[in-house]
Amino acid sequence: MERTRTIEVVEHIGERVRIAGWLHSLRRLGGVSFLLIRDGWGIVQAVAEAGAELGPLQDGVPGVESIVAVEGIAVSEAQAPGGVELRQPRIEVITPVTEAPPVPLNKRKISASIGTILDHAVVTNRHPARRAVLRLAAGTMAGFRATLTQRHFTEIQTPKIVASATESGANVFKLDYFGRPAYLAQSPQFYKQNMVGVFERVFEIGPVFRAEPHDTTRHINEYVSLDAEFGFIENHFTVMALLRDVIAGILTTLNEQYAAELALLQVNMPIVPEKIPHIFFPEAQELILKRYKTDVRGEPDLSPQDERWLGDWAQQEFGSAFLFVTGYPMRKRPFYTHPDPLHPEYSNSFDLLFRGAELVTGGQRLHLYSDYLAALEKADLPIEPFEAYLEAFKYGMPPHGGFAIGLERLLMQLTGMSNIRLTTTFPRDLTRLTP
Amino acid sequence: MERTRTIEVVEHIGERVRIAGWLHSLRRLGGVSFLLIRDGWGIVQAVAEAGAELGPLQDGVPGVESIVAVEGIAVSEAQAPGGVELRQPRIEVITPVTEAPPVPLNKRKISASIGTILDHAVVTNRHPARRAVLRLAAGTMAGFRATLTQRHFTEIQTPKIVASATESGANVFKLDYFGRPAYLAQSPQFYKQNMVGVFERVFEIGPVFRAEPHDTTRHINEYVSLDAEFGFIENHFTVMALLRDVIAGILTTLNEQYAAELALLQVNMPIVPEKIPHIFFPEAQELILKRYKTDVRGEPDLSPQDERWLGDWAQQEFGSAFLFVTGYPMRKRPFYTHPDPLHPEYSNSFDLLFRGAELVTGGQRLHLYSDYLAALEKADLPIEPFEAYLEAFKYGMPPHGGFAIGLERLLMQLTGMSNIRLTTTFPRDLTRLTP
Repeated sequence: MERTRTIEVVEHIGERVRIAGWLHSLRRLGGVSFLLIRDGWGIVQAVAEAGAELGPLQDGVPGVESIVAVEGIAVSEAQAPGGVELRQPRIEVITPVTEAPPVPLNKRKISASIGTILDHAVVTNRHPARRAVLRLAAGTMAGFRATLTQRHFTEIQTPKIVASATESGANVFKLDYFGRPAYLAQSPQFYKQNMVGVFERVFEIGPVFRAEPHDTTRHINEYVSLDAEFGFIENHFTVMALLRDVIAGILTTLNEQYAAELALLQVNMPIVPEKIPHIFFPEAQELILKRYKTDVRGEPDLSPQDERWLGDWAQQEFGSAFLFVTGYPMRKRPFYTHPDPLHPEYSNSFDLLFRGAELVTGGQRLHLYSDYLAALEKADLPIEPFEAYLEAFKYGMPPHGGFAIGLERLLMQLTGMSNIRLTTTFPRDLTRLTP
Repeated sequence: MERTRTIEVVEHIGERVRIAGWLHSLRRLGGVSFLLIRDGWGIVQAVAEAGAELGPLQDGVPGVESIVAVEGIAVSEAQAPGGVELRQPRIEVITPVTEAPPVPLNKRKISASIGTILDHAVVTNRHPARRAVLRLAAGTMAGFRATLTQRHFTEIQTPKIVASATESGANVFKLDYFGRPAYLAQSPQFYKQNMVGVFERVFEIGPVFRAEPHDTTRHINEYVSLDAEFGFIENHFTVMALLRDVIAGILTTLNEQYAAELALLQVNMPIVPEKIPHIFFPEAQELILKRYKTDVRGEPDLSPQDERWLGDWAQQEFGSAFLFVTGYPMRKRPFYTHPDPLHPEYSNSFDLLFRGAELVTGGQRLHLYSDYLAALEKADLPIEPFEAYLEAFKYGMPPHGGFAIGLERLLMQLTGMSNIRLTTTFPRDLTRLTP
């Protein structure tokens, strides 16, 4: 008999169906046995009347997480998960499990320390709440990709082993490349710019590596970066308009295709305004002085507190959970950043704040070869390690820009997770290299 | 005036349009000037009558690869690329280029050594033939993903920095992880199996790293692996059936959405039979003896010559460019390989040959914890480095299997490229770490 996925059982009311999956739980109430079967997508209940034959599960062993197949009649039952249950089940054990998992997977919440959860991620990722977060990661990638593909972007994959540190010498992992030193790419920045010379509009979804020795709830050392870069822009406002559509596209994908996960996690989904409000960096500092009586003028960057204030202001003033801050000072931005032609100490770059915290960084890049030479000299950087990268600018590049979204950070802010480690399959941090 | 992409100019015959891109070439014939403008998608010709104002290009400087915008009337012209050209062009130079590129980009073929092409990949990737190959990479990823998404697979991203070598201690890149040794993942094998415990059906598109010191036309040290893994299979034949659909899905995507690239590269696209023929490993060796008078019986693997013979046979016997060889001897397969229950010295694994060369490897994996313990002991491997991986099997895993397609190898065999380095944006090999 062909197998039905649990989430499709509801389409077969009155029919005999076969499901297969993990024995999520087995309870007995007044002689009646309630089995929950979890497959890769959902959970379905099977109910065996008192005295009915439970077959191999008769004595409660094998236990939970055993792989089982269950055949039964699909019946509407408002009380059951998904509104359907299987009656008169016939049970077959495919892989018996006798030992209870290190963390119970069938409680609504995982009651274990984060260390225990991560140590046993191979198993705890099966918990419906953990799994829902990880599935949202897939949805985020899908929404990002779909939005950009519609807009004629080409997907690229660029090398992760590089000859020199991407943007600065600091915070890169060093490796032995056939006896030579090499590094793990801390971003695809240079390559995605170079590939604008080929495809004009490119995106990449891939790992990036940051050897930052920070032990916080917001840091991991390997994460997934959603990168976009494109040519023939007017300035950073063209990039911001695209980013707005990408964020909206991601949220639409999640709302439309991941409603069950969003409901399970009780995610408060934001609305993306048609036009996200924006504020120029020095004006943001003036606003903080006027409204929050704190003088941060002259600071080269915004503090987390500044960002929270600005987030509150955007919410109150525009009803927007999102706010662009534009024009961060040039001295805090990487050398390839394009200056604001009218205020050259400020840049054509931006941060996108979401609920008062930085979510995305982006901007316009330099596109003239001569500007790169001048910028490297000003930053006191040698030309030699950048020679291949610079060749693209020597032979014609249009005004261009882009952004990078940290997948895990987006998921953390969206779901309200307390620790970024909980938004990824198998996190890497200062001390964690396994599983 | 809004910009039109070159490949959409043909939809605007009779209208004045604006295109923008790279000055691909500029020729003068009898006073008439022919400009080819290349944007991220195609090439359009603009024609200026003798004596017409060429504006900033009047004297041939700036030269090719300058970024230009051209406005003109779109006119049907069978002789022109794409069947359309712009007349009465008005030309604007956005980024002037004065130096000729290191390799001409406007000849039909690139006439440079592979070393030169790769040294200047940042620029040579712009050549229409190079670009077409790289675009096929995007199409292959899209076809892979679409086929699996339709079949309810979930996309995952797993760590590339790992605590111990994935499958064997050899051929892994070692790196310094905050003072501890770590390695670059040579495949997502363990993680994708573990994630079958979560989502049942998973796929991953990501980089893998092989420190193999081979300097051949078929080796690169970082490549893109298209990985799939799924549970509740019967045996490796279930995996082969999925792989057949995935290959067919990729080829359909390329045929339908990348026809221009396939035509430019004159790719001989194969047909995937509804059912790809298969042959059991020892029978393949018998066949080679009978048909090609060479006794390779008892060899634990097939040689490239064996594969060519088998490919010829499949073509002649079944008219198929594809052939599955099943049941490779257990002693040549990794420890997690599932044996053939009827012939335990052979495995439930397979290779997919395409035109007489290995394209994909896959198979059924062990799923019982006790089988893993026995397999590790038999392979004389310690349990400790595999403990986290093994935890998934301790707590219930269904029969499962999968496969990995090397993106670059697939593109090389499909397009008939002479060197795998030419199928990727910026290859990494024994000596090449840049660009």
